[in-house]
Amino acid sequence: MKALVYQAPGRMALEERPVPEIKAPGDAIVQILKTTICGTDLHILRGDVPSCSPGRILGHEGTGIVAKTGETVSNFRPGDRVLISCISACGRCEYCRRGMYSHCLTGGWILGNQIDGTQAEFVRIPHADTSLYSVPPGGDEEALVMLSDILPTGFECGVLNGKVAPGATVAIIGAGPIGLAALLTAQFYSPAEIIVVDPDENRLGVAKRFGATSIIVAAGTKAAEAVMKITGGRGVDTAIEAVGVPASFVTCEDIVAPGGIIANIGVHGVKVDLHLERLWSQNITITTRLVDTVSTPMLLKTVQARKLDPNRLITHRFGLDKILDAYDTFGHAAKTRALKVIIAA
Amino acid sequence: MKALVYQAPGRMALEERPVPEIKAPGDAIVQILKTTICGTDLHILRGDVPSCSPGRILGHEGTGIVAKTGETVSNFRPGDRVLISCISACGRCEYCRRGMYSHCLTGGWILGNQIDGTQAEFVRIPHADTSLYSVPPGGDEEALVMLSDILPTGFECGVLNGKVAPGATVAIIGAGPIGLAALLTAQFYSPAEIIVVDPDENRLGVAKRFGATSIIVAAGTKAAEAVMKITGGRGVDTAIEAVGVPASFVTCEDIVAPGGIIANIGVHGVKVDLHLERLWSQNITITTRLVDTVSTPMLLKTVQARKLDPNRLITHRFGLDKILDAYDTFGHAAKTRALKVIIAA
Amino acid sequence: MKALVYQAPGRMALEERPVPEIKAPGDAIVQILKTTICGTDLHILRGDVPSCSPGRILGHEGTGIVAKTGETVSNFRPGDRVLISCISACGRCEYCRRGMYSHCLTGGWILGNQIDGTQAEFVRIPHADTSLYSVPPGGDEEALVMLSDILPTGFECGVLNGKVAPGATVAIIGAGPIGLAALLTAQFYSPAEIIVVDPDENRLGVAKRFGATSIIVAAGTKAAEAVMKITGGRGVDTAIEAVGVPASFVTCEDIVAPGGIIANIGVHGVKVDLHLERLWSQNITITTRLVDTVSTPMLLKTVQARKLDPNRLITHRFGLDKILDAYDTFGHAAKTRALKVIIAA
Amino acid sequence: MKALVYQAPGRMALEERPVPEIKAPGDAIVQILKTTICGTDLHILRGDVPSCSPGRILGHEGTGIVAKTGETVSNFRPGDRVLISCISACGRCEYCRRGMYSHCLTGGWILGNQIDGTQAEFVRIPHADTSLYSVPPGGDEEALVMLSDILPTGFECGVLNGKVAPGATVAIIGAGPIGLAALLTAQFYSPAEIIVVDPDENRLGVAKRFGATSIIVAAGTKAAEAVMKITGGRGVDTAIEAVGVPASFVTCEDIVAPGGIIANIGVHGVKVDLHLERLWSQNITITTRLVDTVSTPMLLKTVQARKLDPNRLITHRFGLDKILDAYDTFGHAAKTRALKVIIAA
Repeated sequence: MKALVYQAPGRMALEERPVPEIKAPGDAIVQILKTTICGTDLHILRGDVPSCSPGRILGHEGTGIVAKTGETVSNFRPGDRVLISCISACGRCEYCRRGMYSHCLTGGWILGNQIDGTQAEFVRIPHADTSLYSVPPGGDEEALVMLSDILPTGFECGVLNGKVAPGATVAIIGAGPIGLAALLTAQFYSPAEIIVVDPDENRLGVAKRFGATSIIVAAGTKAAEAVMKITGGRGVDTAIEAVGVPASFVTCEDIVAPGGIIANIGVHGVKVDLHLERLWSQNITITTRLVDTVSTPMLLKTVQARKLDPNRLITHRFGLDKILDAYDTFGHAAKTRALKVIIAA
Repeated sequence: MKALVYQAPGRMALEERPVPEIKAPGDAIVQILKTTICGTDLHILRGDVPSCSPGRILGHEGTGIVAKTGETVSNFRPGDRVLISCISACGRCEYCRRGMYSHCLTGGWILGNQIDGTQAEFVRIPHADTSLYSVPPGGDEEALVMLSDILPTGFECGVLNGKVAPGATVAIIGAGPIGLAALLTAQFYSPAEIIVVDPDENRLGVAKRFGATSIIVAAGTKAAEAVMKITGGRGVDTAIEAVGVPASFVTCEDIVAPGGIIANIGVHGVKVDLHLERLWSQNITITTRLVDTVSTPMLLKTVQARKLDPNRLITHRFGLDKILDAYDTFGHAAKTRALKVIIAA
Repeated sequence: MKALVYQAPGRMALEERPVPEIKAPGDAIVQILKTTICGTDLHILRGDVPSCSPGRILGHEGTGIVAKTGETVSNFRPGDRVLISCISACGRCEYCRRGMYSHCLTGGWILGNQIDGTQAEFVRIPHADTSLYSVPPGGDEEALVMLSDILPTGFECGVLNGKVAPGATVAIIGAGPIGLAALLTAQFYSPAEIIVVDPDENRLGVAKRFGATSIIVAAGTKAAEAVMKITGGRGVDTAIEAVGVPASFVTCEDIVAPGGIIANIGVHGVKVDLHLERLWSQNITITTRLVDTVSTPMLLKTVQARKLDPNRLITHRFGLDKILDAYDTFGHAAKTRALKVIIAA
Repeated sequence: MKALVYQAPGRMALEERPVPEIKAPGDAIVQILKTTICGTDLHILRGDVPSCSPGRILGHEGTGIVAKTGETVSNFRPGDRVLISCISACGRCEYCRRGMYSHCLTGGWILGNQIDGTQAEFVRIPHADTSLYSVPPGGDEEALVMLSDILPTGFECGVLNGKVAPGATVAIIGAGPIGLAALLTAQFYSPAEIIVVDPDENRLGVAKRFGATSIIVAAGTKAAEAVMKITGGRGVDTAIEAVGVPASFVTCEDIVAPGGIIANIGVHGVKVDLHLERLWSQNITITTRLVDTVSTPMLLKTVQARKLDPNRLITHRFGLDKILDAYDTFGHAAKTRALKVIIAA
């Protein structure tokens, strides 16, 4: 089969690889219908993710058709259309039992990282019963790729952790795909205001169309000042960090109202300054989270009920044989205006 | 009346002052029975609290007898024995309605800070109906002074925010009075382990008597290593910061388990490093809080039911005329082994 | 002034009465702009509410202009446009401090019940600071009358207690004004399905326009069967009882899924059968509540943000001099298709 | 092997049966060390549990040693000492993922009911990875039998659902083994008062030794009056029903304070009267639950930390060959004063 392989920092290629086989009784082999590229894949390519070794097939998102199942798989059978979670979960360890699938002792984010991933014609999914989800009748396999990672990430790490509530004021720092996923799912809870901050005007145009009530073309101190002005000096109930750099986290610290929450989504490479000399008395909460995908069943229902349209995040489409072009388009998002790119296997 | 007055950085004196008068219909004048000294009073004396001007009568803790009430005070009448909350709360503003009394728009921590305090024979308490609490029949006015500030602070900022739970593993960094208050009230929830960390062996001896299951005579990296060893490398469910310096906050970051909580109590003077490059994916929560004293009614019940003995925090007793000695004793706690000192007015 | 007075069971009249005066320093006198009639007013007229004596001016909903304030009222001053809560709350008693304003020891539902109410030109509001709410700039005094009682009731007793969640399946039994208020506010949380049950086809037409995803023209066992069919035999996550008779409560018992919630809003006159012989093992929750109106600030924000349009509940308008006609119209809702009737004072 | 077999209503016998075999790859065969008898076993014997057919080996509690494991069992291996949960959970279905193991689509309470149980020398445990728990080093296999069912039931259905809190007032109606299990575990949360109600003075003596702050030798209306007197007319924050008959549930309705919770544990055979004509406005919550045993890991930690001593529930000990005597002793508890009887296999 064809597969996109990480060869070395800065190098990848579409290689010919053997179709994966069942290795454990809980495995399933899934024939990929659609997959996509995540910002994390770009991090791997830069050599920033030590857990991912050269030779790895990339990709942790996708939908497909079950081709084979190990003997203990009970929720799925060959021919079933499935959504692949970016998080593999055994369902049996201490963390899984607490709903923290991201920290599963034999799973977590391993797909396209510690085991071969979804940017290929087939993929092996361990712990299939608790790592795959049935595509509902009439479900759109392309739209549902957005439920592998980006929508649960925006929802769980940003919206749920941020306790977005009816009538509340929310700020989202960063209007990339993940900030937009938080923006779409924040609207489940009818906040009064959603202020989106980004230096890129194009992305803010998208944010506006996706439901932002205010947009701020700025970053850092200027962004914080603008948010405080919009909120009459009060600050926001929920500040969602969707970038992953110190400056945008500090913006969150600058705008969170007393009693408010900073919900971090961003993948950070360096430490940040936490201004406890000011915040110690402000009754605030800060949360971090690697997505657990425990909300996937809920998100599937909201898609079915048309409360959420994942297609809005999809801007480009490619065949698997053109996946290098897809990487190129996704990697130059400022120029191409790409949000999420679909790759049809 | 006699009153301890902050005169200038580094200078205080017991002065003769007029007995305070009712200024607003919701005020009460309380004759002090017992008061105490807080670490914050020492901060004021050092000139570190800009909101407190010279000339101020210090003190924000105490019990007493209501001497006079303004015409709208309905919960209290002269002769009532009362506990004074360190937080004044109007009960009517947006923050009070949300239970965030610490951020009351016309109250909060103002006593012995922006208005005259309790280290005197009499004190004026604004918003008396929602800032005083009845001493229950048979209640001990000396023990209950510990419910003005230190016990609700340890409980709300450390134990409640830290979601201490049956069977959980808790670490408390700092065994000063506030850490010990967290230690006493954490036991309401039957955690399996309470590890207390402090460089001072004497204080750890107290912690051991107060219920710590392990003590660690160390700070910084060594303390973190010791906690990780005790927990089999797993870390703690709740890490309570009860010092207020960067190193002890970083210790909390080093020992919090995935899914755990860092509950900050300490008053910080400078920023701290938040290691998001490691913690972004650890599903942790960090909380800060200025005590709201919303738990005072609950704490009164636990004292009445003998689930909590506040007297254990009291080590020394003085008359009001010897309050300078009391400050001296409290200010040299390492030598005097003082925890809380009672001053009888 | 003119006022609608309950004279005896079955008898009311528009009488001339003196304008009310400030009786306590926390009182405000409000000149009524708009008021309305509640189902409870009809209960009083039938003699079913023993706490309400003949001679009482009815009405517990309305908006108006502050005419006078007692000396301790700090949140309002004459000339302010205000929303009147149906619940008076002192903000100081044990229940108010817990957010249970409905059980305020000197308040609760007293307006138009134990003290004179809002169906008049003026009304005296006790505990004004915590029983009135500012009409936001540009706020519509007619629409906001719906926030005095019916919308917080539907929201707090039905939607909040029922923990309506994104993707969930909700059933509302009863499509009268209160069921419709629950229907409107349930949509704050983006449930996947809202099934509304009522024997009256006209009301269900309204429910459909207001966002119901399914409607069932039935009651009792047939209604339950229809709900089970729609949900594929699974039942509902939240069942909201909005009628107040045994049969509709039993319908809720019949349709609640394992792990689900029955949130009662209805005012019941007789006991109901609770089928614990079946439900003891079903992990369900049943809640009851007299509205606390603690959500009023939140609801005001959702109205300002156009997430909620209270005008949709208003079907008829009358002047105060025609209030007997208004009662007639509201009392024959099946014929007049009245939901809420506005009375302009 | 020897096994206690339900033969027909009113009839059981110790039979010789073949040792069970692995049927599915997730199964484990456990050699029983200790088991016990539950009130439910008596119900089965009376013919009251239609899901349990004659020929069934009874028993759903116990500890033992793993004898064999199916090929996909990963948490256990032969020789491991284990605690058997009364609830079998697949860990993979919708209910298990929500922590509602009691409603597992292929599990739940099946042991000694729909499949052969633990009152035998060996038992087959399906879904072993999520239905067994490791006995911690030094753990007491006899004491831990109390964690199979009775302690998690009292804790989850009574204490957790009842939200027992520090300083709260709790009433437990029924001082049988399950009420006593609630009594022991309620103390995890340091309530101020625990009032235990039962007509049997002997059981109340046990309750007193186990930590009840008040005992009431009564039932029905008299019991309710006594509780109201003890609470100064206020009622209780949490009322735990631990009997399973209408009268004791109505007692709970009579004593629950506004804002309080009725947590039902009892297995009810007939419907009860729910007095909504009084309770509709009292802001109360009623919960039901079949134990999920999700708290078993937490309870194991509290036993290890000596916060809970399960041995206090054990009154009698028998060998498996004397199990008919054990049933006799347990079935005449009023006379024998039996709480839980241990059977050594």
